[in-house]
Parts: sequence; structure tokens; C-alpha cells
Amino acid sequence: MTAKVLIAGSWRDADSVGSFQATNPNTNQKLPAEFPISSWADCDAALDAAAAAAREMRTLPAAKIAEFLDVYADKIDAAKESLVESAHAETGLAKSPRLADGELPRTSGQLRSAAAACRSGDWALATIDTASGIRSCYESLGPVCVFGPNNFPFAFGSVSGGDFAAAIAAGNPVIGKANSSHPETTRLFAELALAAAEQTGMPTSIVQLIYRTGHADGERLVADPRVGATGYTGSRSAGLKLKSAADAAGKPIYLELSSVNPVVVLPQALESRGAEIVDEFAGSALMGTGQFCTNPGVVVLVKGKAADTFIESVKDRFATSPAGTLLSPAVAGSLKSSVSTLCDFGAELLTGGGELESDRCAMANTLLKATGNQFLSDPEGFQTEAFGNASLIIVADDVDQVCQVIASLEGNLTGCIYSDPAGGDDADYDRVAFELTPKVGRVLNDKMPTGVAVSAAMNHGGPYPATGHPGFTAVGVPASLIRFAKLTSYDNVRPSRLPALLTDKNLTGQTPRRIDGVWTTDDVPAS
Amino acid sequence: MTAKVLIAGSWRDADSVGSFQATNPNTNQKLPAEFPISSWADCDAALDAAAAAAREMRTLPAAKIAEFLDVYADKIDAAKESLVESAHAETGLAKSPRLADGELPRTSGQLRSAAAACRSGDWALATIDTASGIRSCYESLGPVCVFGPNNFPFAFGSVSGGDFAAAIAAGNPVIGKANSSHPETTRLFAELALAAAEQTGMPTSIVQLIYRTGHADGERLVADPRVGATGYTGSRSAGLKLKSAADAAGKPIYLELSSVNPVVVLPQALESRGAEIVDEFAGSALMGTGQFCTNPGVVVLVKGKAADTFIESVKDRFATSPAGTLLSPAVAGSLKSSVSTLCDFGAELLTGGGELESDRCAMANTLLKATGNQFLSDPEGFQTEAFGNASLIIVADDVDQVCQVIASLEGNLTGCIYSDPAGGDDADYDRVAFELTPKVGRVLNDKMPTGVAVSAAMNHGGPYPATGHPGFTAVGVPASLIRFAKLTSYDNVRPSRLPALLTDKNLTGQTPRRIDGVWTTDDVPAS
Repeated sequence: MTAKVLIAGSWRDADSVGSFQATNPNTNQKLPAEFPISSWADCDAALDAAAAAAREMRTLPAAKIAEFLDVYADKIDAAKESLVESAHAETGLAKSPRLADGELPRTSGQLRSAAAACRSGDWALATIDTASGIRSCYESLGPVCVFGPNNFPFAFGSVSGGDFAAAIAAGNPVIGKANSSHPETTRLFAELALAAAEQTGMPTSIVQLIYRTGHADGERLVADPRVGATGYTGSRSAGLKLKSAADAAGKPIYLELSSVNPVVVLPQALESRGAEIVDEFAGSALMGTGQFCTNPGVVVLVKGKAADTFIESVKDRFATSPAGTLLSPAVAGSLKSSVSTLCDFGAELLTGGGELESDRCAMANTLLKATGNQFLSDPEGFQTEAFGNASLIIVADDVDQVCQVIASLEGNLTGCIYSDPAGGDDADYDRVAFELTPKVGRVLNDKMPTGVAVSAAMNHGGPYPATGHPGFTAVGVPASLIRFAKLTSYDNVRPSRLPALLTDKNLTGQTPRRIDGVWTTDDVPAS
Repeated sequence: MTAKVLIAGSWRDADSVGSFQATNPNTNQKLPAEFPISSWADCDAALDAAAAAAREMRTLPAAKIAEFLDVYADKIDAAKESLVESAHAETGLAKSPRLADGELPRTSGQLRSAAAACRSGDWALATIDTASGIRSCYESLGPVCVFGPNNFPFAFGSVSGGDFAAAIAAGNPVIGKANSSHPETTRLFAELALAAAEQTGMPTSIVQLIYRTGHADGERLVADPRVGATGYTGSRSAGLKLKSAADAAGKPIYLELSSVNPVVVLPQALESRGAEIVDEFAGSALMGTGQFCTNPGVVVLVKGKAADTFIESVKDRFATSPAGTLLSPAVAGSLKSSVSTLCDFGAELLTGGGELESDRCAMANTLLKATGNQFLSDPEGFQTEAFGNASLIIVADDVDQVCQVIASLEGNLTGCIYSDPAGGDDADYDRVAFELTPKVGRVLNDKMPTGVAVSAAMNHGGPYPATGHPGFTAVGVPASLIRFAKLTSYDNVRPSRLPALLTDKNLTGQTPRRIDGVWTTDDVPAS
């Protein structure tokens, strides 16, 4: 039996043009459940329902929407066992600690922090200019389509993750497009979300779910006049097609596409604490079988004895660590092909590579090496993202060449520099950081990039092609909400007609507002 | 003799593929000065110089950049006479009050308010999370291309206006592309800017100027890897070509494209104070010969005696007011053609239309009328923007139909609703405002939209196709700066390496920063 889609508040048979099954990557066996590929008619119906829900949501107090998010978070915590079981079967990710103790509490925590932002209105950057009689804030934009990735079935899930939480907290309904690698997990979330919507008196079309569409229908969806914006996390090729369609229609689309997350280890740091950095790097590079968006895919060193030792140690660690399971046959195939591409460009295979395992989605941990000269001869080729448990070490002649390598990078989510704690690398740090900072969304010191804290100061974003726009973050409340909002000024609008965030009285008592240039939670002073 | 372009700090002969002259719209005579059409070689040289300037600007204290903006503003005030003379000859705009007493002080004021934002850093939304050790802020993005419009030669000028001020204050050099209707005025500004750069020790390539390029080179320019972002204000057709090129390269582009700025006059307001509203509307509609971005191009009324009286009075006012001069032969030609298009769709010509004047760029003030039913039968056609001294009145059957008309609008910069001060329209207001708000960047009550106050709460923006993105404003400091910036997180970055806005000490003593969720100008508390 084929699963039902969630459209307009009810689970119903899809208007289907086909079906698909997910694969258990630990066994390479197809999972029994069948999921429909929706026709445009399903998209169209979801858009109509979402447009109606968006209108209704505009009339709801923010605190009601926040209540929905909180109740949903509680339901997720309560359903931990079934969610973890399902996601493990569909993605191969470890039940514990990864899914049960890491990603699940992170997910409910994100929903609660989005609820807090929704309730306080701090995300909306309310601005009041008493002299001109103009007041502005960000407000809801309309239905948001969310295309979730394969690698975080909870925390970036189409109807559970950061984009979902941000879109809802900004006052918009979501149309989720499940990732094809974990449709059942996504379905379970949608059930919980629907129950939370019913319990809290939301329009039930606040969340809708389809599993897959044809490519053309996906492009039509993100460009539809009824859509407010789209959030997409996934492969660069599919993302760029959606971007092109959305851009042509003038619809905002926020994409997270690809990143090799360069790590530079400066000479003195390598000398003084290379062994520790090997530990940190190998742990980060193989964590989740290397399938984090912020996985350190490229390490840049300066040649010499310390570099040789570092490389040997990493090679040993890669060779002796068990290879984790990859998310899907598609990921495994793509990883194999990317490694092969890097070798074709001339990278040296130090360990790993070779054939995929036959009885599960897996490839040996893979370490590649190239010189700075090689990299500079074809920066685009050597930046081929090998998504999974493979990393490339670039051995530069000197720090000058490290700077050239960094300057030739595309946009990335993160960039790390390890430097000597005693200050021995400080002059080199400045030069490398100067090249690195414009290329990345997040600069790290002495730390691997795989932890993405849910912090107000987090930027999980970066220049193209890491994302579609360098000014927005997908993680970090309240900043992530602003993606799904429009700026609106109210000019000479009568007091009784102002939105709640802009009235003279600070109705929540806690909303930060910039009144005549000063951020305050006070009321507007009586004139 | 052909004018020189300003590239890499010096005025030099263009690598030219042709030349052009501006026309004095008050005489229809070509002005004597010739201006070059630059080849790609000029663009390429400007990009190289701008990229170098961008690197240098990253090392400068914000206060130095602010000083440049202030000195430039002073030089503009001092050069008022020649700027006004030149702009009047090139645009036909009145020397006084428009140019000398309105637009010029507004322009220098914008530069000074951008300088203040640059100095205080309030625009950068500095965020510090002490628990996670992560800090973030917006920072410079790289060279910004500015394509200025024809209608505000000072306040939106490529090297003098709001985009220029915002780009520089955010720390980026500007490559200005002059508007072809006022190249000499733009050249004068560039001279002043260069002098200000020299006087304040800026990289002289902080401002560069070319006058025109071929279309393909313009598209190549905004997509170039050396570019950070582009600001464009102008015609929709040219803007969408640039947007397409920039989007495909993943380069941010901020566009202001077109807007009919709907004005709804509700029945009781029409009844009780129609005559006053006639005054306000006619004044706003004909101001600057109707060539404001926020010109009220469409008025929506409910049929009846008061509507008939209103229309008759507006018709009289339009017929008896002298027709102003239009900005250029191109604007005049386009206006005539747009009026003719609206008539083809079935709009009734109440006054005006007809032939252009032969000895200057001018057309009679033009008022058109259509019914709500007509509008709803082809909303796209009836939204044809008639840029200039022409307006369209839509007479709806009732407030329900007003709501339908509003709901069928494209995105606009502004939307106004006039309602009875005594409250007689309040129920209707709520319905109309509910439809109007999502369509516009700025909602006004009882006020025409042509005043665009330079206020922190101003949104000079709106949903596509008014602009390219509903979240950004082109006017209003500090919000306008954020367009030309990238978000960067600093994760575990050592204190001595943090950017000035993110150090424990609040170095300016006045930068608002969100520290652990609270906006403050305090230092980070000692841990």
C-alpha cells in the first residue's frame, strides 16, 4: 500500500505518477513502505491550502503560533523511540548517541527556540521613528516550501528542522517535500505536526507533506505565485535548477548547496600539537561517515616533516577506523565517483577508495593528497565535493602558497585555522585569515567545523556556491527567521491599525525595538 | 572631446566602442558633451582596481570611511550651484525647490547618515553569544556596482545616492554606471568623490565611473567573480536582464524595477473629504512630472456620486495644470506608448494623451479611467506602468471588488488607504488593508506616497516585481547597508583577532550589540 500525502489537513491518496521505496543503507535492501510521486495536482492543492492557511495565520497572535511549536516539540520528544527507529532504518545513522541523544533533542530544542523568538518578536527588528511617524518590522511572507536534505533527517527535516521552525515562527505555513531517502521518518513527523496543529487550534494546513515530484513540478512549485519563499538543502545540481526557476519568478529561495570546509593547520601548530589535531581532524572527518554539511573535506598544510607525520597519522587513523554506513546508495555512488574524479585530476590516493561494499552502503575511509601546485593548476577540479568519509590534504610549498590556495576557493560554509597557542603562527594567521574570511560564513580557530551550535551568533551560511546568498543563515534563532519574512513600513498608519509589534505599548513587555535609534523593551514614550 | 572615465584613481580615456550625448529635455536639443561607451576592457580594469580597493578598505577603521562620506557630503553642499545647473540641463527638473532645496540636501544628508551608521556600527547587527564562544556581524562584501536611475540624479545617483552611500558605509568600493540621461552630473559627483577620497586618504578606487556599456558587458559586469553585489534602479526590462545574469552567478543584486503605487480612497473618506484628497492626489501625481518611483499611478474608488465628483475634479486639475517636462525623449516616448497601451486595453481617456510636444519632452497631464470589471479582466494589462504624468482611476462596484482589485496586484513599493477620520470606513479598511499589506513594502494611511523620508523605519522596497527581494530597503539607514554585506560568524576566534565590532570592549562606546539575547552598548561582561 502506498503512503498517503498530507494535504489540506488530511491524509489522502496522492494524485500519483509513480512510487518509490527507500533503501536501508545497512542492508542495501529496499524498505517495504511505498511512497507516491505526486503530480502537479497534488502541488496545486497543497498551494491552495497553504495560501488559505497563510491568510489565517496572519490573524493569529504570535503566542498561539509559538504554542504550536512548543506542543510539537513535546510530541517529538515523546515519540523519540519510533522516530529513531525509523530514521535508523532509512539512513543508517546510529540510534545512539547520534539520533536519540544528539539530533532529536537538537530538533525539539530548535522548535522551542523558534517558539521563543516567535513569542518575543525579537527576530522582526521592529523599528519605530517617532519623528517621521514611520514604523517597520519584518512579517510573514506566505507559504514556504521546504526541501530537506538526506543527512539530518530530524534537525533539517522538511517538516521538523531548522527551515520548518523558522518559517512557522515567522508566521508562514510549510509545504514539506520529503527527502527520498527517509520518507517514512518525514511522514511520522508530519503526523505529529498535524496532531499539534489540531491540539493548538492552528489551521491544519500549517503543515503539508508530499514525498516527491517530477523535476519540472518541483521547479514550478518554487516559482508559483502562491509561494512566499523556499528553503532547500541538498545537492548543488538539483538546487541550482530550483534556484533558477525561483529567481526567474522573483521568489526568494534560500539554498545550502555544497562546501568543502577548508582547514588550515599553520606550521607551528602542526609542529607543537600535530598529534592532537590528527585526533580532532579524524574524529570530525569521519563523524557521521563524513556526511555533515560542515565536514572538513580539505586540509591545507605546509610541506615538511611535521606535515609528513600528520599525514601518516591521519592515514593510519582512516585506515584503521571502521568505515561507517553511508546514507543511501546514491550517496555511496556519488562518493565513489567524486573520489575517482579527484584521482583523475591527479590527487594521490593514500588510503581507501576502491569498490563500494556490496551488502551495505559503504566505502573504505578515504584520504587523498595533492600539492599546492596541483591544486592551483585546477582549483575547480580539486574542490570537487566528496560527500562522505573522504578528505583531501593539500600540501603547499609555504604559507604564501597556502594563501593562494585559500584565495582560489569558492564560497564555503566554514573555514578553520589552527595556529600555535604560543603565538608562533600569528603573522601567518593574519595573512591566511585575510584570504579566508571573505570566502566563508564561519571562521573557526583551533576547532573543527562539524559542531553547528544553535546560537544566535551562528552563521550556517556563506558565499555562493555554499549557499545562494551571503547574508542569511539557516541555523541560529532569531536570524534564521528573517529569510521567510518581508519588510513592511507603516507610514502614518493609525495607532489602532498597527501590527502588535509596533504599537506604542510593548505588548509582550520583552520585544526589543529600535525606537528613535535606541534598542529598548520600553513602550514608545508619550509625545 | 569625449569625457574621460574614472578608473583606478585617474581620469583616463575610455576604451570606447562608441559615444553618446545627453539631451536637454527642456529644448529637445542634444547637450554638447560627448560621453564614451566603454568596452569590456574598461569594466575589467575597474573590477581589478575595485578588488584591490576592497582589500585595502577591509584594513581601514570604520571611522576613516565615515570621514570620507562626511567630507564628500560637504563637497556636494559646496558645489551645489554647478550640480544643480548641470542636473537641470540634463533632466529638466526644476532648479528650485526640487534640485537645490530638496534633492541636494537630501543627498548630502544621506551620505552623512550613512557615515554615522558606519561610525557606530549599528547596521552590522553584532551578536555575541558568550556561552558558545560565537560572535557574528555583517561585514563588507566586495566591490558594488551601482546603476542609478534617471529620475533622481542626486539622491539615487550612481556615485552619490542611497546605494552608493550604503555600499561605501558597509565598507565596499563602488563602480558607478552613470545613467545615460545625466552623465555630466554624474561626472561632477565623481570628481567630488575622488577629491574627498584623496583628502581623507582612502584608496582612490573607492569610487570609479563609467558612463555606459553594451548590454552584454553590463550583464558580464554584475556576474563577475570580483563583484560583491549590485544595486540597480531603473526600467524593469533592463533590470531583469541584469538580475538573470547576476542570479546565475550567485551574485546578490538589489533592484528597484517598477511600481504603480495603488491608492484606495474608501467611500466615507471620499464623501467627507474628497476635495482635500483631490488636492493631495493631484499634487502627488504631478509632482516631478509624475516621475517619482512612488508616484500614485492607480487610484481605486467605489462608484457613486462622490466618485464622479472626485474624478471630475481630478480631471479639471490635470487639464488645467501645466504639463511638466519629462526627463528625456525616452521617458516621453515610453509614456506615450504606455498610455496608448492602457487605452488599447479599454481604459477611457479623460484628459491628456495625444501627441508629445515637439520642442521639449512633454505630454499633457493624462487621466485614464477603467471599471473594476475591466481591471479584473486583465490585471496585468491595466498595471502597465505609465511612468510620468499619467494616472489611472479604477472605479469598482463596491468594496468587495476593491479587495479583488487589490488582491490581483503585483508587488508594489507603496499602497495607500484613505479612510474617514471619524471611523466610518473602519470595517472596510480592515478588509482592504488585509489584501494590500502583503503586496507592498510600505502601507500609508491618509497620505500620498511620494514623500520617501530618510528614516530608519522607511522601507523603500517591496515584493517582486517592485524589487527583486521583499526583505530589503534601498532607503533608510542603517537597514539599507545590510544589502551590501555578508554575515560572518567567528567561532572560538581568539580575542585579539576579532573584528572591531565584536571585541569584549565596545570600542565605539555606542555600538548596539545583542549580547546573550539583550541589545546593549555595554562591554561584554568579564566572565
